[in-house]
This record gives sequence, structure tokens and C-alpha cells, in this order.
Amino acid sequence: MSNVVVYGGAGALGRHLVSKFTANNWRIVQTVTSIDLVKNDNAKHNVLLSIDASLEEQAKAALEGVSQALGSGKADAVLCVAGGWAGGNAKSTDFINNSDLMIKQSVNSSLIASNVAAHHLASNGLLSLTGALAAEQGTPGMIGYGIAKAAVHQLVKSLAADGSGLPQGAVVTAILPVTLDTPMNRKFAAADTDFSTWTPLDDVSDHLFALASKTAKITSGKLLSVTTEKGQTSYNEL
Amino acid sequence: MSNVVVYGGAGALGRHLVSKFTANNWRIVQTVTSIDLVKNDNAKHNVLLSIDASLEEQAKAALEGVSQALGSGKADAVLCVAGGWAGGNAKSTDFINNSDLMIKQSVNSSLIASNVAAHHLASNGLLSLTGALAAEQGTPGMIGYGIAKAAVHQLVKSLAADGSGLPQGAVVTAILPVTLDTPMNRKFAAADTDFSTWTPLDDVSDHLFALASKTAKITSGKLLSVTTEKGQTSYNEL
Repeated sequence: MSNVVVYGGAGALGRHLVSKFTANNWRIVQTVTSIDLVKNDNAKHNVLLSIDASLEEQAKAALEGVSQALGSGKADAVLCVAGGWAGGNAKSTDFINNSDLMIKQSVNSSLIASNVAAHHLASNGLLSLTGALAAEQGTPGMIGYGIAKAAVHQLVKSLAADGSGLPQGAVVTAILPVTLDTPMNRKFAAADTDFSTWTPLDDVSDHLFALASKTAKITSGKLLSVTTEKGQTSYNEL
Repeated sequence: MSNVVVYGGAGALGRHLVSKFTANNWRIVQTVTSIDLVKNDNAKHNVLLSIDASLEEQAKAALEGVSQALGSGKADAVLCVAGGWAGGNAKSTDFINNSDLMIKQSVNSSLIASNVAAHHLASNGLLSLTGALAAEQGTPGMIGYGIAKAAVHQLVKSLAADGSGLPQGAVVTAILPVTLDTPMNRKFAAADTDFSTWTPLDDVSDHLFALASKTAKITSGKLLSVTTEKGQTSYNEL
């Protein structure tokens, strides 16, 4: 039996992933567990977190919910695709609050997913987090976003090293997209946006599916840049 | 008139810095403002934050307090030396809480210091944050610490880039020590610790003093490794 856990399974990319994993009947038998603030009816199991709960309470609820969903089984892949975006430089009125939000959305979700993986990932299973290619450099106009994603990038390196608490042979990475083609990003796009450089959710979902089912390879601890040009998406280890 | 702001001015390194800056009568006239949870009587001004306040409230109190301390003046240096240490891998019972604590102690303090610098640093002034050399790699046994410090490292790159909100000509860096020789670190040191590799507070304070008074140079946006061997401390741009 093989199982997939999607943190952020009710978000744009998460819903796409859940549907794809369900439709493809990944490997033999499959359960998809979504962890999110709201339910995804396509997932076999839903672990619901409360936005008002503390980080500790959310982590506890996630661990318990996944444990219940998996029973005596293990997850073959834990995919954290939660996140968000907010801009602002150090002088912006919203600088502190937006930075706090970015940490909650990207770092805290990644920490909980790592904790879930440490307890429930199968040997040789995949843990994939979500970073951002921009955060490999300075991001002066979106400082909170950049620091949160940089923290996720370092988390990948830590989790892939000996003694991280992940099971033997686990593979850890983070996808580093530029812009994902989501309804929310479309809504706020400038009039002259070149959408042929945006990554379709189907492309990145396919690649995560391939990584999880081991038909695509990734070196554990490496980040995976996801870039799209003229509608063609490339994946490169950094 | 020249002014220095020390975030974490009542901590081990912070107290050392405040005393040094006061004793040296840095440049012409000098006020040292300490931002911390408790008072440092050696500082001319104390901005006290409440540990129970939200990040937003703390940032507001810091901005207002520094504004009041400086009057119509600007700060020639904002030095953030707040921080802490907690270990644990992704499977540790304390993983989530320790990671949360590390983010609060290192990232949130750095965000507030950046916000203060954006509003109160003089042109060509120095903003120095505190990172960790270990976080340039994976840190599997102290994951929360590593991600928090990696976020600080990326923050330096963002703040040094155009449009970050810092004043024209500001110089931004972070010191990246290995182990500072503080009473707290001594308390938890193993019996066989080689203290000749620990960095004396006096060394790093001298160097921050030299950077703030421009007798030592640093490229804005570069991180500064602080390593000590046989009691000799070296500073290298990364």
C-alpha cells in the first residue's frame, strides 16, 4: 500500500496534486491525505488545522491526524506545497506583519511537514518542500518572502544530513519555482505579464509525481529550480 | 553627534558592546540606546520590549522608543546582537517549539532591527545582524537554529540591495560566529571543550566598534565569518 501526504492539499497546487495522485492510482494502492485549513473532498483523508491554533497545537494535530490516516502504514511521499506571497521592503508599513505572515505560511508549514515526515515517512520516501528561486539572491522588495524561503532552503540541507531525524534513505528537496500559474497570481498580474514564463500547475505536479514515484531522480539535499520559458518547464538541481 | 543602537543590549554580547561604546566615547559625542526586554544601566537610553507583546507591538515600541531616544538625530550604527540557541532534529519532541523560539529570538529581532534601521539609520551608517557560520551548511542536530540564522543571512543580502528601504549608502552585514565565549555557553560546555576556539566577547566587540567607526571595512551585503583558533580571532567576508 502506498500513501501520499500533501500539506496545503486544499490550495491551488495542493488540489492539483491531490487530483493527479488520485487519478493516476500511484503505484499499487493509494491513499492521499490532505493537511490544510479546509477540506479537499478529493483526498481520502483530511487533517484539518485551525488557523487560530498555536504552532505547537497545529503540529500536534497534524501528527495525530496523519497517524490516524495512515494506520500502521507509512507515507511514501510528504509534499508540502503550502505558502503564500506578500511584498514589502524594510521601510514598508506592513513590513513586520507581512514578514510574520510569510514565516507562518512557508516556514511553519515546512516545519510541520518535516515533523510529520520524521515520524511517518517510509524509508527511501520523498519529502518535498516549496522554496523560491528568487530567495537564492537578495529580495529587497519582498523581504519577508525571501527570508522565509531561504529558511526553507536551509531546512532541506539540514534534513538531508545525517542525524536529521528523517528515516534512513529519505530523499529531501524543495521545488524553487519563479511564478506558478495559479488563479490568485493571475488575479494580481500586471497587464503586460508574459504568462509563457509562468509554470503551469500541471507541469510541476507531473514532476512531483515523477519524483515521488521515482521515475525522476533528485539528489537528496539539493534544491530544484523550476523555470518556464515559452511554456516549456525545466527542472535543475542547484 | 553620533548614536549607536544595540538590539539585545542587555544580553552578554550586548552588554559588552554597550560598555565598550560608552567607554570609548565613539567619535565625538555619543548616545547608546539599548533595546531589550530588561534595562542596561550603562546605556544612555533604554527601549524596553515586552516578551508578551506581539511582534507588531514590539516593532512599534522599538520604533517609537528609538525615535524618542534619538530626537532629531540619526543612528550611525544599529547592531543587533540578540539571539539564542536551542538544538533538536526533526524528530525531537521539542522540534516545533525550539524552532519557533529560534525564529522569535533571531529572525524577529533582526526584522525589528532592520525596521529601526530603515527609519533611523544615518546615510552611510552600519546595520549589523547576527548569523551563525554553521547555518551556511545543513545543521541536522539544531534545525530550528539553522533555519533562523539562514533567514538572517538572506536578510542581509536583501537589505544591501537597491530598494530595500535602508538609507542611501547604508552598510549591512551579519557577524557569523562559531561559539561566543559567554557565561551561558560556558555553563553548558562539555568537559573537554577547547575554549581557545571560542571567540572572546571583547574581540568581536572591538571588531564591531571598528566597523561602526569605519576603521575596519566590510562590503555591504557580505556576511562576516568570525572564527577563533588558539585564541586568535579572524574576520573574513563570505
